[in-house]
Amino acid sequence: MEENKNILKQWVISAINNRSSKELKEIFETIPNIDIAEAIADVEDPKQLLYIFRVVGSEYSAEFFAELSPEQQEIIINAFSDKELIALISDSYADDIVDTIEEMPANIVNRVLKACPKDLRGDVNRLLNYKENTAGSIMTTEFIEMKDSMSVKEAIETIRTKGKDAETVYTIFVRDNKRTLVGTVELSDLIFAKEDELLGEIMDKDFVSCNVNDDQEDVAKKFKRYDLTAMAVVNSENKIVGIITIDDVVDIMEQEVSEDIAHMAAITDMEDPYLKTPTLKLVLKCVPWIIALMILQVFTTLVLSRFETVIAQFAILAVFTPLIMDAGGNSGGQTTTMIVRSLSLDEFSRKDYGKVIWKELRVASIIAVIVALFSFGWLMFEMSVGIVDTESIKALGRDSIYADMAFIAMLVSSTLFVTMIISRLVGASLPFLAKLIKLDPAVMCGPITTTVVDIVSLCTYFIMWVFVIAPQLGILVNL
Amino acid sequence: MEENKNILKQWVISAINNRSSKELKEIFETIPNIDIAEAIADVEDPKQLLYIFRVVGSEYSAEFFAELSPEQQEIIINAFSDKELIALISDSYADDIVDTIEEMPANIVNRVLKACPKDLRGDVNRLLNYKENTAGSIMTTEFIEMKDSMSVKEAIETIRTKGKDAETVYTIFVRDNKRTLVGTVELSDLIFAKEDELLGEIMDKDFVSCNVNDDQEDVAKKFKRYDLTAMAVVNSENKIVGIITIDDVVDIMEQEVSEDIAHMAAITDMEDPYLKTPTLKLVLKCVPWIIALMILQVFTTLVLSRFETVIAQFAILAVFTPLIMDAGGNSGGQTTTMIVRSLSLDEFSRKDYGKVIWKELRVASIIAVIVALFSFGWLMFEMSVGIVDTESIKALGRDSIYADMAFIAMLVSSTLFVTMIISRLVGASLPFLAKLIKLDPAVMCGPITTTVVDIVSLCTYFIMWVFVIAPQLGILVNL
Repeated sequence: MEENKNILKQWVISAINNRSSKELKEIFETIPNIDIAEAIADVEDPKQLLYIFRVVGSEYSAEFFAELSPEQQEIIINAFSDKELIALISDSYADDIVDTIEEMPANIVNRVLKACPKDLRGDVNRLLNYKENTAGSIMTTEFIEMKDSMSVKEAIETIRTKGKDAETVYTIFVRDNKRTLVGTVELSDLIFAKEDELLGEIMDKDFVSCNVNDDQEDVAKKFKRYDLTAMAVVNSENKIVGIITIDDVVDIMEQEVSEDIAHMAAITDMEDPYLKTPTLKLVLKCVPWIIALMILQVFTTLVLSRFETVIAQFAILAVFTPLIMDAGGNSGGQTTTMIVRSLSLDEFSRKDYGKVIWKELRVASIIAVIVALFSFGWLMFEMSVGIVDTESIKALGRDSIYADMAFIAMLVSSTLFVTMIISRLVGASLPFLAKLIKLDPAVMCGPITTTVVDIVSLCTYFIMWVFVIAPQLGILVNL
Repeated sequence: MEENKNILKQWVISAINNRSSKELKEIFETIPNIDIAEAIADVEDPKQLLYIFRVVGSEYSAEFFAELSPEQQEIIINAFSDKELIALISDSYADDIVDTIEEMPANIVNRVLKACPKDLRGDVNRLLNYKENTAGSIMTTEFIEMKDSMSVKEAIETIRTKGKDAETVYTIFVRDNKRTLVGTVELSDLIFAKEDELLGEIMDKDFVSCNVNDDQEDVAKKFKRYDLTAMAVVNSENKIVGIITIDDVVDIMEQEVSEDIAHMAAITDMEDPYLKTPTLKLVLKCVPWIIALMILQVFTTLVLSRFETVIAQFAILAVFTPLIMDAGGNSGGQTTTMIVRSLSLDEFSRKDYGKVIWKELRVASIIAVIVALFSFGWLMFEMSVGIVDTESIKALGRDSIYADMAFIAMLVSSTLFVTMIISRLVGASLPFLAKLIKLDPAVMCGPITTTVVDIVSLCTYFIMWVFVIAPQLGILVNL
């Protein structure tokens, strides 16, 4: 892969340097644009870049331009004559133009807008105004709309003449006399239909559309649910204002997933590629969460501090606290992850909370029994082979050292029993709570679960020692 | 949403019970199949289900059948006469049939295979034999392949007659005389082209294909990279054996993401919806990891146990261990998540390890300084207001209690400084290591990072106390 890229790069560069337009054309005919763009990603010489655009035909140049990096796009726009810029832009789709100029300096934006033909400029301006992450912000305005009274023959004729400017000709949107969207026709339906049938007769009436203000995540879900390749975007009067195609949605899905994953790991977004994100920006994505979680830990500190004298008296208790806390954290994390994922895939709604908790209660009970039994055995093993120093355990003063160990192992394993149940119930409940108060369940649910579980399990642990195990052993605990 | 589902359910059920075929047909004409299937998800009465299939036309029934639950599908197949089964199956695509029968009992599989027309049966049998998660296992065998010597007119004619059986007519795959795949033609290209042009003249030669044995994740990446809607699957001789369409890929992307998220949270897969996964299966997905991670904790226990006497002497040290361990775990988790995500999006390859570590070193240094400074202040605050009991700190015996506190705060914050740097370097390195030894970086990198960081930070903490801080205070530590 890496090697192919280098070979391709050498090939393109040598074609440019030898001024071999034939070779360059051949490259563009046989290799996808994005591969070429990636191979020359670090070429920033305006002359080399310009040569490509002067040689390669317009059927490639607009699409190829969209694949270049913002830096390269800026270099090219600056180097282009007005005439060249107009030619490039006339071949581009409005949404690609918006993507290009959105983060460019004002003088470039102005040059590009001036170069737009009048109708395209209107589209670009409108697209620039939709709020980020809405259907409006990702839609394109180049689509094919036809009246329901049109015949199949006329429709195919219209596609032949106007289709080249549309982002897709595979879905045709059908409107009635009042310009209301009433159906869709697939291009394949046109091919299969008789020439004199009307669009109104053959159209699908069970089509799905979205509103300009819908969240892009909901749009992506609809595409997935209904296996769509294109969807109409309508305004509040049910008039079509744009369309979204499946290739845009694939990008959105990836973006939304990255967001979810980032939030679960307590990172603020990961929208940019890692190596391209400036160091300070990376720091800012991470450090506030580290500090917030540290502050959240105040409760754990408070609990441990209250039992400091107990620890001083019998320090081996402190040896097992990380084991308990981590097991609780891992278990709660598993549950939270499952529930957050299911909620975000719309597998269930808030109303199913009862069902989920009932299920968790059964899962948690079984896990608790297994973990408690295992940990009892595992701790006995750790103490027997000396991984845990048993010197202080002898202080318990049972007849045999194994009886002493069994008391400690019992303390830890019964705490783990409680911890497993609490961690799963809390881990399953918090995402629902977040949803109830309209927060993104992925944010903070993990860390908060950990904190709650830490507190409950530490209290269980020390209270069980102070009030159950120690009295049984005749040990006087000073609190 | 939930309400619409109930209304729809009532409507469908009442149409069935009133034997109103007109109403039922209207429902299927105006409402997408998947919505209807979801509304009647808990209908398991064979008579009600059969009525739907007897009334609704074949243009809906095969697709609707594919959306039903496996339980409902089984009920219907059992209730169908042989003739009805043949009618349903003839309208289905081979890949849908495979999805349906893959988890059904043998007698149902046999009935379905018997009901398949001969050529379809061959396809189904072949599809059943491809290894899971390969391109072969998700492809469909109903595609349109034409010779490069065919004219545009002939091509459109062929689509009209044979297109109805193909999964997509939007991409036509072009082969030469030797049956080798040489190009693709979009249906729109046919519409725009002149009738007497040849496919070989208008086809795209820079098309992208995949091999039957390619991993489905790589297939999904290609779709995304090249904005495809359909892709040819070829065998080792470059002959086309099937195609994959974008709607299958959207499902795969979601599946792969769920897998990654599950692995990062130490869960074995989450391929089934949560509520439909049996309790015991959920237990099995979670409990082995909890136990594995508990065993991994042996190192932390070992370290803490070695310092048990130190804790016994000065128990307040134990109060801050969770703070240090959690901060290290969170910070390492952030880094691992970022790197795993970037690796899985192919943002960089193994060769970029040096760049990543250099970047992490800068990010980590800044974070370490911020966290150390903050934690110093935060701990001073916690101790001043009594969140942490300061009785034992007085034992340090400085002139003022604040001087005592400052020593403890310094111990913790310098440990955190080291922890922040180590956690990010380890968190960034492990995913690369996993990739080097061909493991999925998402699996276990998080927990292993936590364990390594726990050990390093606990050792730093106690060693710094024993050999730096305590001697300075003139405290004799018995190890």
